[in-house]
Amino acid sequence: MTWLAGAAAVAALTFDVDAESPILAQGGHYAEHLTTMSHQSYGPDVGVPRILDLLDDLEVPATFFVPGWVAEQRPGLAANIVERGHEVAHHSYSHRPPTSLTGAEERNDFERALAVFESQGITVSGHRAALWEASPQTPGLVAEHGLLYDSSLMGDDRPYLLSAGGVVELPVHWSLDDWEQYAYLPAPQIGSVIESPRKVLELWKAELDGMRFYHCLFTLCLHPFLSGRPGRLLALRELIEYAQNRGDVEFARCRDLAVRASADDSVAVRPVSPVVVDPSVYP
Amino acid sequence: MTWLAGAAAVAALTFDVDAESPILAQGGHYAEHLTTMSHQSYGPDVGVPRILDLLDDLEVPATFFVPGWVAEQRPGLAANIVERGHEVAHHSYSHRPPTSLTGAEERNDFERALAVFESQGITVSGHRAALWEASPQTPGLVAEHGLLYDSSLMGDDRPYLLSAGGVVELPVHWSLDDWEQYAYLPAPQIGSVIESPRKVLELWKAELDGMRFYHCLFTLCLHPFLSGRPGRLLALRELIEYAQNRGDVEFARCRDLAVRASADDSVAVRPVSPVVVDPSVYP
Amino acid sequence: MTWLAGAAAVAALTFDVDAESPILAQGGHYAEHLTTMSHQSYGPDVGVPRILDLLDDLEVPATFFVPGWVAEQRPGLAANIVERGHEVAHHSYSHRPPTSLTGAEERNDFERALAVFESQGITVSGHRAALWEASPQTPGLVAEHGLLYDSSLMGDDRPYLLSAGGVVELPVHWSLDDWEQYAYLPAPQIGSVIESPRKVLELWKAELDGMRFYHCLFTLCLHPFLSGRPGRLLALRELIEYAQNRGDVEFARCRDLAVRASADDSVAVRPVSPVVVDPSVYP
Amino acid sequence: MTWLAGAAAVAALTFDVDAESPILAQGGHYAEHLTTMSHQSYGPDVGVPRILDLLDDLEVPATFFVPGWVAEQRPGLAANIVERGHEVAHHSYSHRPPTSLTGAEERNDFERALAVFESQGITVSGHRAALWEASPQTPGLVAEHGLLYDSSLMGDDRPYLLSAGGVVELPVHWSLDDWEQYAYLPAPQIGSVIESPRKVLELWKAELDGMRFYHCLFTLCLHPFLSGRPGRLLALRELIEYAQNRGDVEFARCRDLAVRASADDSVAVRPVSPVVVDPSVYP
Repeated sequence: MTWLAGAAAVAALTFDVDAESPILAQGGHYAEHLTTMSHQSYGPDVGVPRILDLLDDLEVPATFFVPGWVAEQRPGLAANIVERGHEVAHHSYSHRPPTSLTGAEERNDFERALAVFESQGITVSGHRAALWEASPQTPGLVAEHGLLYDSSLMGDDRPYLLSAGGVVELPVHWSLDDWEQYAYLPAPQIGSVIESPRKVLELWKAELDGMRFYHCLFTLCLHPFLSGRPGRLLALRELIEYAQNRGDVEFARCRDLAVRASADDSVAVRPVSPVVVDPSVYP
Repeated sequence: MTWLAGAAAVAALTFDVDAESPILAQGGHYAEHLTTMSHQSYGPDVGVPRILDLLDDLEVPATFFVPGWVAEQRPGLAANIVERGHEVAHHSYSHRPPTSLTGAEERNDFERALAVFESQGITVSGHRAALWEASPQTPGLVAEHGLLYDSSLMGDDRPYLLSAGGVVELPVHWSLDDWEQYAYLPAPQIGSVIESPRKVLELWKAELDGMRFYHCLFTLCLHPFLSGRPGRLLALRELIEYAQNRGDVEFARCRDLAVRASADDSVAVRPVSPVVVDPSVYP
Repeated sequence: MTWLAGAAAVAALTFDVDAESPILAQGGHYAEHLTTMSHQSYGPDVGVPRILDLLDDLEVPATFFVPGWVAEQRPGLAANIVERGHEVAHHSYSHRPPTSLTGAEERNDFERALAVFESQGITVSGHRAALWEASPQTPGLVAEHGLLYDSSLMGDDRPYLLSAGGVVELPVHWSLDDWEQYAYLPAPQIGSVIESPRKVLELWKAELDGMRFYHCLFTLCLHPFLSGRPGRLLALRELIEYAQNRGDVEFARCRDLAVRASADDSVAVRPVSPVVVDPSVYP
Repeated sequence: MTWLAGAAAVAALTFDVDAESPILAQGGHYAEHLTTMSHQSYGPDVGVPRILDLLDDLEVPATFFVPGWVAEQRPGLAANIVERGHEVAHHSYSHRPPTSLTGAEERNDFERALAVFESQGITVSGHRAALWEASPQTPGLVAEHGLLYDSSLMGDDRPYLLSAGGVVELPVHWSLDDWEQYAYLPAPQIGSVIESPRKVLELWKAELDGMRFYHCLFTLCLHPFLSGRPGRLLALRELIEYAQNRGDVEFARCRDLAVRASADDSVAVRPVSPVVVDPSVYP
């Protein structure tokens, strides 16, 4: 498994810089909810600068998935992330999940994000579906537009190919996402319990150790509006230091990982064609 | 209590290899949700091989409840489990809960699963209702088709008989199921909080110790798409080793337990006839 | 505060022996859900005998709130509890919450339960509303039928009087109820997370210690179908032993506490008249 | 950053004395739910006196946000808080969230609360929106009525200005609110899990330590009907003592903080104008 480059596990730190987009995707009228909007703008305004400093401090690279709409609203945001040595990747235009869109709407949204990044001089090499809700046509859009990888599926915990020689999947998982641990809003409801950073650290350390045992890809997904809070950042710092102190975990940008996985013959091909369903069994 | 065979408690490790079926049972359109489908296929594709290796390592037998539809979709799956020394049992055809079906639909679904296993040369001796939602006719179907046991009810925490000399019930419980601890999906919603494997280990150790005190059957129910994740597998390993180190816990396949319980006169008979309800009190 | 009888805090262990009633109150059709019914019958069948043994072992008295319908379905149940030295009290007939009934329905349900207990030769001295959902007429029904106390409200954490010289309230609280910690059912949904007995013990010890500091009534409310499980019973045993080892906690039946509180001039009178609401502010 | 007055972090202890108001705001008919009403009245009746004693003991000042309706229903309440050395601030009249009201209704509710405080001789200097659900016109109402500060938004974790020279925002956050940790009611549903005070202490200590690292404002929001419970008060005592023992945390009233922040040129101006939304993207 050359994609591991000799490590027991590889950690891909990824940040979804969603800002207001996932809330507005649930209804444009939430723009009038001032507290909710401020809860979201905290991400790029307060969280991202602290995260960039933390990554500098610990000398680890990361990948930032940015919706095109967010990049458009905050013109310097994506460029600044790139300047600091990190990767910016495609995270839809509007953060509306592909499973809620028609084929034409998804294509339009996908291409509109590419146009934003092109206009800002940002090269993107990979894609993550909004809400991790890829549709049957999503992998085809990724391939058609020449991107190297997708990071929205959960069919393995190691990189895999969506077709022989084709797009690399860098899989995610709900248990390595900060949303289920930290998110709370009364309207729209986006979570019910706010966990302690100590519990979250325990959960992620357990998964990291399991992944060192099984030689996996630890794709951590963090949202600056959630993990940018002070106590959570200290826990993230502790997690990264824990991984560094193990001595067998490598940190890598998604783009670099995709290149390595593409060149590794041991990487599995897993078909993504949707299950064929008999409507008399599953209406 | 000869069913205990001298142990303080008996542990039945059971794995429900549901794959996509419980999601499709909530709507065939979920076949178009690629991420959700990949979240489910992880179970048979990645989780089951690791679980089989873990059981080998620790030399413990287990029982795998497989929906007929899943066995059909993945032809070698059930046979491989049997070859590795474990039991395969009946877990409906489609994973639609009997309480949501008409009598004819439930019978049809029940018998279709039997036909799949017969066509694959797999002998099944027991049954577990989909979603643990047995209907008033479920026990009769189990008896009529000559199965030894059911494992869907919660009327005790020791084996019991559903009628004198008849079907053995090997009871389950929500607290010994990984679903309530680990499951999360945004659509369909199947859970709200993702717990740390450390918490789950604490919960299950507490129940195991209680069961050693009260001499019970520790029926652990795990789903490969959930418990097949790296960190959770390490916790499962620790749980099994904890039980082994106690020195008074036996691990057994459900089929073997059912035979022992059938031959044990001390096993209680608990009627399963539904409560008779006065509609003027409970409309 | 003579009701404390010199203790720092008094513990009232109370068990709500609801069996199937709270589920059937959500729809009579749940009688056809075999697993759910067995989950509920576990309470009187398996949980109650173990609880009675545990109370014997530790020599602590308790109060069992039993719906009339449950006492009727299981004729020896209430009498057995009394024979073991504990108190049986009124917990509605059908476990339908008074806030969901008309005045006539509530009265009928209330009196039907009294008739059941009378026919079984059980003397009841107190009442607890189903689901702790007292209506504005509930306290009047308690007083009219000569009961000493109610245990459904949360206006204090010490006994109080619902009117001068009248009914004693022995208050409860959601944080001292096992339902929010342990209950889970998919249909009807009665909870979302199953906590570890270790967490629950931590929560209840913290509240007990707080109540020793502030001199309160620790009214613990347990359901045999939940707390009758092996691991949870060991935690309950540990909690009782913890309280006993403090040396300043007394265990008392509700009836005895009500008598003491009635005779204590320091006990507060808290009016229960509902808030008067201006419909132009709160429609 | 002179607003810090040399401390590493400043702690603003705030108590929202909501009593019955947030429940009645969900439907006037809840006035007939006796248990729920008693659950809420516990706040001013039992919780507030204990909280005032605790603050005296530890010699820390606090700010109490009181809905006008609550102040009206309990005439001596606000005055007593002021006499004990704390600040009383504006928390709407009825606790209906501004996002659910028309502009005229919000203004009317806002001004009615001011009139109540004026009639009771209470000077208020700041405002917190009901449910932290500020509307686009809320900041303007705060400025128009000459208040110094608002405490409803989440755009930062340090004080900020809503316009140059204008209203100071003292931001809050869901993770520093006791509601998400402790609140539970079956009807209306206001929460699902009741956490242990030990977990909550762990969460808040983690955030306090993070805020000492990043130099932030620790705005803790507690509800007397929740945090007034015995075990939770002991945890609050421990948290305050923990902060005091760090030696670098200052406790301050919101009014005093607002004055300091107004005079500090380093405080950021963050616009509150709502996001402009393209309805073809976000309908």
